[in-house]
Amino acid sequence: MFVDWPVDRLQSYLPARDEPKDFDEFWATTLQQARDAQWPAQFTPYDAGLSTVDVYDVTLPGFAGQPVRGWFLVPRHATGRLPCVVEYIGYGGGRGLPHEWLVWSAAGYAHLVMDTRGQGSNGSLVGDTPDPDPVGLPQTPGFMTRGIADPQHYYYRRVFTDAVRAVDAARAHPRVDPDRVVVTGGSQGGGITLAVAGLVDGLAAAMPDVPFLCHYRRATEITDAFPYGELVSYLKTHRGDVEQVFATLGYFDGVNFAARAHAPTRFSVALMDNVCPPSTVFAAYNHYAGNDKNVTVWPYNGHEGGAGFQRGDQIRFLRGLLGDA
Amino acid sequence: MFVDWPVDRLQSYLPARDEPKDFDEFWATTLQQARDAQWPAQFTPYDAGLSTVDVYDVTLPGFAGQPVRGWFLVPRHATGRLPCVVEYIGYGGGRGLPHEWLVWSAAGYAHLVMDTRGQGSNGSLVGDTPDPDPVGLPQTPGFMTRGIADPQHYYYRRVFTDAVRAVDAARAHPRVDPDRVVVTGGSQGGGITLAVAGLVDGLAAAMPDVPFLCHYRRATEITDAFPYGELVSYLKTHRGDVEQVFATLGYFDGVNFAARAHAPTRFSVALMDNVCPPSTVFAAYNHYAGNDKNVTVWPYNGHEGGAGFQRGDQIRFLRGLLGDA
Amino acid sequence: MFVDWPVDRLQSYLPARDEPKDFDEFWATTLQQARDAQWPAQFTPYDAGLSTVDVYDVTLPGFAGQPVRGWFLVPRHATGRLPCVVEYIGYGGGRGLPHEWLVWSAAGYAHLVMDTRGQGSNGSLVGDTPDPDPVGLPQTPGFMTRGIADPQHYYYRRVFTDAVRAVDAARAHPRVDPDRVVVTGGSQGGGITLAVAGLVDGLAAAMPDVPFLCHYRRATEITDAFPYGELVSYLKTHRGDVEQVFATLGYFDGVNFAARAHAPTRFSVALMDNVCPPSTVFAAYNHYAGNDKNVTVWPYNGHEGGAGFQRGDQIRFLRGLLGDA
Amino acid sequence: MFVDWPVDRLQSYLPARDEPKDFDEFWATTLQQARDAQWPAQFTPYDAGLSTVDVYDVTLPGFAGQPVRGWFLVPRHATGRLPCVVEYIGYGGGRGLPHEWLVWSAAGYAHLVMDTRGQGSNGSLVGDTPDPDPVGLPQTPGFMTRGIADPQHYYYRRVFTDAVRAVDAARAHPRVDPDRVVVTGGSQGGGITLAVAGLVDGLAAAMPDVPFLCHYRRATEITDAFPYGELVSYLKTHRGDVEQVFATLGYFDGVNFAARAHAPTRFSVALMDNVCPPSTVFAAYNHYAGNDKNVTVWPYNGHEGGAGFQRGDQIRFLRGLLGDA
Amino acid sequence: MFVDWPVDRLQSYLPARDEPKDFDEFWATTLQQARDAQWPAQFTPYDAGLSTVDVYDVTLPGFAGQPVRGWFLVPRHATGRLPCVVEYIGYGGGRGLPHEWLVWSAAGYAHLVMDTRGQGSNGSLVGDTPDPDPVGLPQTPGFMTRGIADPQHYYYRRVFTDAVRAVDAARAHPRVDPDRVVVTGGSQGGGITLAVAGLVDGLAAAMPDVPFLCHYRRATEITDAFPYGELVSYLKTHRGDVEQVFATLGYFDGVNFAARAHAPTRFSVALMDNVCPPSTVFAAYNHYAGNDKNVTVWPYNGHEGGAGFQRGDQIRFLRGLLGDA
Amino acid sequence: MFVDWPVDRLQSYLPARDEPKDFDEFWATTLQQARDAQWPAQFTPYDAGLSTVDVYDVTLPGFAGQPVRGWFLVPRHATGRLPCVVEYIGYGGGRGLPHEWLVWSAAGYAHLVMDTRGQGSNGSLVGDTPDPDPVGLPQTPGFMTRGIADPQHYYYRRVFTDAVRAVDAARAHPRVDPDRVVVTGGSQGGGITLAVAGLVDGLAAAMPDVPFLCHYRRATEITDAFPYGELVSYLKTHRGDVEQVFATLGYFDGVNFAARAHAPTRFSVALMDNVCPPSTVFAAYNHYAGNDKNVTVWPYNGHEGGAGFQRGDQIRFLRGLLGDA
Repeated sequence: MFVDWPVDRLQSYLPARDEPKDFDEFWATTLQQARDAQWPAQFTPYDAGLSTVDVYDVTLPGFAGQPVRGWFLVPRHATGRLPCVVEYIGYGGGRGLPHEWLVWSAAGYAHLVMDTRGQGSNGSLVGDTPDPDPVGLPQTPGFMTRGIADPQHYYYRRVFTDAVRAVDAARAHPRVDPDRVVVTGGSQGGGITLAVAGLVDGLAAAMPDVPFLCHYRRATEITDAFPYGELVSYLKTHRGDVEQVFATLGYFDGVNFAARAHAPTRFSVALMDNVCPPSTVFAAYNHYAGNDKNVTVWPYNGHEGGAGFQRGDQIRFLRGLLGDA
Repeated sequence: MFVDWPVDRLQSYLPARDEPKDFDEFWATTLQQARDAQWPAQFTPYDAGLSTVDVYDVTLPGFAGQPVRGWFLVPRHATGRLPCVVEYIGYGGGRGLPHEWLVWSAAGYAHLVMDTRGQGSNGSLVGDTPDPDPVGLPQTPGFMTRGIADPQHYYYRRVFTDAVRAVDAARAHPRVDPDRVVVTGGSQGGGITLAVAGLVDGLAAAMPDVPFLCHYRRATEITDAFPYGELVSYLKTHRGDVEQVFATLGYFDGVNFAARAHAPTRFSVALMDNVCPPSTVFAAYNHYAGNDKNVTVWPYNGHEGGAGFQRGDQIRFLRGLLGDA
Repeated sequence: MFVDWPVDRLQSYLPARDEPKDFDEFWATTLQQARDAQWPAQFTPYDAGLSTVDVYDVTLPGFAGQPVRGWFLVPRHATGRLPCVVEYIGYGGGRGLPHEWLVWSAAGYAHLVMDTRGQGSNGSLVGDTPDPDPVGLPQTPGFMTRGIADPQHYYYRRVFTDAVRAVDAARAHPRVDPDRVVVTGGSQGGGITLAVAGLVDGLAAAMPDVPFLCHYRRATEITDAFPYGELVSYLKTHRGDVEQVFATLGYFDGVNFAARAHAPTRFSVALMDNVCPPSTVFAAYNHYAGNDKNVTVWPYNGHEGGAGFQRGDQIRFLRGLLGDA
Repeated sequence: MFVDWPVDRLQSYLPARDEPKDFDEFWATTLQQARDAQWPAQFTPYDAGLSTVDVYDVTLPGFAGQPVRGWFLVPRHATGRLPCVVEYIGYGGGRGLPHEWLVWSAAGYAHLVMDTRGQGSNGSLVGDTPDPDPVGLPQTPGFMTRGIADPQHYYYRRVFTDAVRAVDAARAHPRVDPDRVVVTGGSQGGGITLAVAGLVDGLAAAMPDVPFLCHYRRATEITDAFPYGELVSYLKTHRGDVEQVFATLGYFDGVNFAARAHAPTRFSVALMDNVCPPSTVFAAYNHYAGNDKNVTVWPYNGHEGGAGFQRGDQIRFLRGLLGDA
Repeated sequence: MFVDWPVDRLQSYLPARDEPKDFDEFWATTLQQARDAQWPAQFTPYDAGLSTVDVYDVTLPGFAGQPVRGWFLVPRHATGRLPCVVEYIGYGGGRGLPHEWLVWSAAGYAHLVMDTRGQGSNGSLVGDTPDPDPVGLPQTPGFMTRGIADPQHYYYRRVFTDAVRAVDAARAHPRVDPDRVVVTGGSQGGGITLAVAGLVDGLAAAMPDVPFLCHYRRATEITDAFPYGELVSYLKTHRGDVEQVFATLGYFDGVNFAARAHAPTRFSVALMDNVCPPSTVFAAYNHYAGNDKNVTVWPYNGHEGGAGFQRGDQIRFLRGLLGDA
Repeated sequence: MFVDWPVDRLQSYLPARDEPKDFDEFWATTLQQARDAQWPAQFTPYDAGLSTVDVYDVTLPGFAGQPVRGWFLVPRHATGRLPCVVEYIGYGGGRGLPHEWLVWSAAGYAHLVMDTRGQGSNGSLVGDTPDPDPVGLPQTPGFMTRGIADPQHYYYRRVFTDAVRAVDAARAHPRVDPDRVVVTGGSQGGGITLAVAGLVDGLAAAMPDVPFLCHYRRATEITDAFPYGELVSYLKTHRGDVEQVFATLGYFDGVNFAARAHAPTRFSVALMDNVCPPSTVFAAYNHYAGNDKNVTVWPYNGHEGGAGFQRGDQIRFLRGLLGDA
């Protein structure tokens, strides 16, 4: 069943943004510190048993210069600089194995899959990137409330910075055309995509699917599902910290990143999705600053959204945008 | 938690086979009728937006010559006749979209994915193949009991025949080396793999993962999970038909097919899998006739089994067996 | 809790009908074809061990003349032509056993219980009628989406035709007064009742309880419960077929049948029924064409509705309408 | 799945009986007190709108002479004294409405349905009999632990006495042949049937289906399901009362009643029944004293057991035993 | 997620009261009868192994003079007459053990914990008080519908009277200052608190947390959760008794008691509480007659509400009101 | 139902210990490092609004000298050095608020409640202690697998060290008699209790209730429940790390600590506890080295075990051991 408002109300939903005054400064400083701590990303050839793709095991400098793992795949028979898709992963999963990420190289693109620090131990895709946390504030199990008592220590400050730096690493690779970098991901990966789209200039496209990490306060008020439910669990315990928590989250809200994003974009949203309810997605979409934007509405889907169908639309969209790969 | 016996008991479990006397005749006749009704399989080029793989939309003659859909993928830059992996799909899913099946072509093989008739409408991979059923016996929702009152009309008679004919179609394709055809699949796809391994000679390998459709009677006695649960639901209603149902299933039991299968094989089984409990898998594995056999035991996994890790093992196994693709 | 709108909004809810232009022609042709294929219904005496009721095992010509099973019960000590109740069965159940259907003969009526083709294997009432389906389009497990890609092949085209032909068979029986035939059923049986009420003239009464098969689109938008959920599961997979599916369902919507039904009617509806939500029932009730209509609202019931209480009301209603049986 | 031991172990399971020394004296005294407080049962004609059955609203003297309600149904066209089926009801349900109890009169028997005191408010069959409890010991919600701290005050002391007195009332009715009284019931009704079979001489037959109220201690150790779970909930709280509780239950255990029962009997049991697990039923069956005994094993059923199929078997069994009704 | 209306609508929600005309007379008579049957409450020293608190096992005269158990705790080193907190217990629990009730004596108050008759066998706090019920009307398992067919026999008539008498017993104790008696409790204990606040004059304060037993009709319409769900289960069965049931409940509705209560009060309510939904709590709060009132809204909590935080607020509130204990 | 072996098998279950050779060295080094980093614990008076207890907000030096929070409660009217109960907290909870820990001071003991680092955000007791983790290995949400890839970085290395240091801090307090320190806790707190009992000499008693953190491998094989389930989730993902994980856990297994513990002890275990299954508890109990040992078996309880009843037994046990407090 539909889990949120009727679609016409969703399409016109433009809530006031809950944004700290120093949002831009916060991020400028954070990114600068990361770039100051940089070292050359490593791309080590990896034998995945594949014959149409060259695979590299990646270690790139992320937040505070900390190492972040990933996979880099390039179609073996292609030549020259290629457009590159940088992909971020859904909540709980890690970078997995190279043969679990074959779409974009098969479509002719270079493809960088970024591991999500600390994640990748939930029974699905395995992860390999630590999340050093020398402060270690008390938290609800999971990642949503790690360090939430302070924007400086919040988990997604580190993740979003990693994600920006992954674009930097891709752009610096000799097989990548730095002017044709696309960011994408579903759910958490979609939320990260929005953050990068708001923080990085000159992206060729941003394709967030059923994005998470948007419009947090409303999310906690209308769904019990996890991972937004981790916020509820935290606030259920730390009863006095409601405003402080949402003050922190203001720095990490996809709505605020969308308002700064100008790359051509294709969103997706599903009307039966109680994990990332439609109004939280439309809040970001409707605030998205770029003019070349569209959102595919999947009426009878839950959080899986368009799945392979959405992927097919993306392949066609990029082909139209970037030409035959 | 472990859902079945300790692993040492599993490894030595060799139950008596429950097999009808005319098992071989039943299948010989069935396959002959299908081959008598044959027509040339069609391989239509399909634009999936991919640049490293050539994709074909397949329609091949299956049971009684009825059309069965599939995808055929060939690495674009390869030449000559290639080894081919024929893959069967898990319960409920259909052939989906071509970019959802990229592993085996990336590994250098031709790859034929066979749609499962009637399936592909359960919210995951979409299907496109009808299952004409001019008799239409009453059944429990699903596919497990479709036509179960009569071996001639049982659903898996049609599916297993389709699967044998898919191997025939692959072998007849000019890009395929007919002596290097491998069959594989997980869950229902694993059960079909076993059937084909028992019915087709000269396969290069058979790789059933956490196979379903084995040792039915014990399955119904030790698990409530679906799809074996469809049998329970049927017998719960048709109280007088217990022996008739298991008589039908004797023609379709992976244990009986395994006892006739000689291709090199790699099974997998998971000790926390209540969908295809370990003893039902070991019953087939321990009866498997071929000498070159091995089974990977995943102790802490449920029905997902080895997932990408198992796939990686298979890539390495085939490389060892067939040489670099 | 109440699962839908407040009762005053329900009572005035009269949505626009979503009806194909050739609705009447579609059904006229369908019924004519069935009648063209007719043969005499068989009523075979059956020893059910009962002493107040004569029981007959029925086989009657249904859709395309296909055989449909049923039970016919007549109070043994009654004489002459009797009013007859034709009853349709809830989703999943079959005709069961004769002693499971004793109310209407005990109340003095002839009683024809129609088996629902293909159903009757879900753990409750057993069924005996095949559903030949020589096309066999892919479908979600169950019956809601069997053949849904084409109105000509849709499952309920066959069922509703069977149901009309069951009335024909009852009227033709020498113990039945053809002018005093009543149709009834609960849930799916209520949906079938509405279809028959809209397709057959001269019925003495129609008594649909908590009817299913009404106002499909809204149903899929407000409930997750099965069997409407089968539509959701189908559309979740076949993402591009939404409008086609509802175009098919337009031929089978209780709302459209109700708008053509003139027999005196007694509906029932339950405000805590999430299987057949109240607004879908009121959509049909409020469109019902006959003037002699009433609906019993059970505020604290789920899909069981009035159960035995409703049955008691029906006994009294028919006695008032038809005189002492 | 099977919820208990293999069937061969079940068939030979004969646990030591846990029986208080004064069991017989306890019941002799209890029944004598009830009979001392007797007054004539009332059978008031009731208009249920039925034409093949005469229905009477019954009030009979039960435990301590307290009024117990019921329905009495007699086939209208029968004459003379009839064999009578006295039926007891499953846990939670009450006597409901007369047209919900039509099988036995249709089969030609007089039929007395006894309401279960206090029950009949759980959403299914409605009840009308109070359970006066002037002591009112603390209890877990439900009826299993009402008064369990003292055998004199235990709820089933009152219910079993009501049940014996219902047989007395039936035998005293002018339309009933007192030598041909049969007791039956499913689940709780089966447990009551066993109690009556052990407490009343000269019954024509006892037919307990999937009986509850047997072998309590083992039941609490092997199932979480309700209503045995009420005992667990009570003992979970009243941690020091374990032995006292089982001492009380010794007076009310179907195993102990079975050891005193000599009427011909037909049990049923279901191997997937976790409400009344098979070993608790076989414990009673294997101790049953009468020689003319049989048990139908339903392998693929849960607590519904044989349902209508079992009822059909009972009809045939009684016909063989009592002649055509 | 929020389970009811937005907080601003809640704050202004003042539904019409559904109150019988003889409400005050009903209670005046009931309480007078209880006081007429009084006898001196017994306070027996009890060795709970504690060294800072004196513990007494209490038996006090409740409804109709029936004995009601409790614990009385006094800080050992305090002297003179103390303010006293009388506490009522949540649904299902009993008085438990003395060391489970240490807060109020530690804070310096005398503390009387009243057992809830019949309860205390649900797996949590154990209970010791019988609920004699010589009428024993049929009921849904639990306590919500015990005797609900008649206000004279309704369970909470007895409980609320016990609760008033517990205040009387506390006031009569030589260590208690009768002008400084506070009533409190959570959930059912909160509902009882409201009843006492409406029935007893001169209380120093009333502190109901997430109170149950308020605004019954709306509760049954908006939540499925138990214990309000017991009402639904009863009305689901006793379909004709809806108005009678709510007529009974009118005598026991916290809304009606609140309208008569003048003691200073602190409520709490939780916006994610589906057991006692916010609008039912605000209905009582907004009708509360006293001027010194406040309600703490816990936005991210379910039925646990403020838990220890609320308790801390209460400690501070009482200190402000009553001075240092 | 019983979740594990029969009680006689449990009582004699003495599995081989899975213990690394350098177990003692590992812990000696770890504790020495912590003591090397020590600083004086701070006990700050805290106004909790209580009048019989003096409350102190504690910060003590834990693992690597990191600050660990706690509460220290002393009965106000006691004098001199008191015996002290050091209590550890169940999984997920934090130190909460002082008035949530009133039993042991009421019983006359000094009482130190140690916060569990990182925990206290799961909706129950709130926590205040960070868990600095400068390595931050990937992990399953929760605490069970934090750092599990390396014994040096494993979470419980830090927690167990904190717990030993809490005893040190208690012993150093002027109001505590260092020879009469007792350790206790339930579930995780019981597991920590065992660790401390094995690592600290001269404890007056150890009272682990339904202890967690024992016999890990068997736990993962027989229960799906959390938190042991976190290990399963981790191993489900990190398929190749099974032996490495159990190698790490060998340093942290309650079985191994028990074998080194000599203080008088009282365990508890519950036969329906699927969170800490009985055989894992008995494995530790049966290996416990001290001679003065006993275990209370709660047959009808789940993970709540004896709850208040167990607490009462402990009060009496300590009184017998330590004299009147």
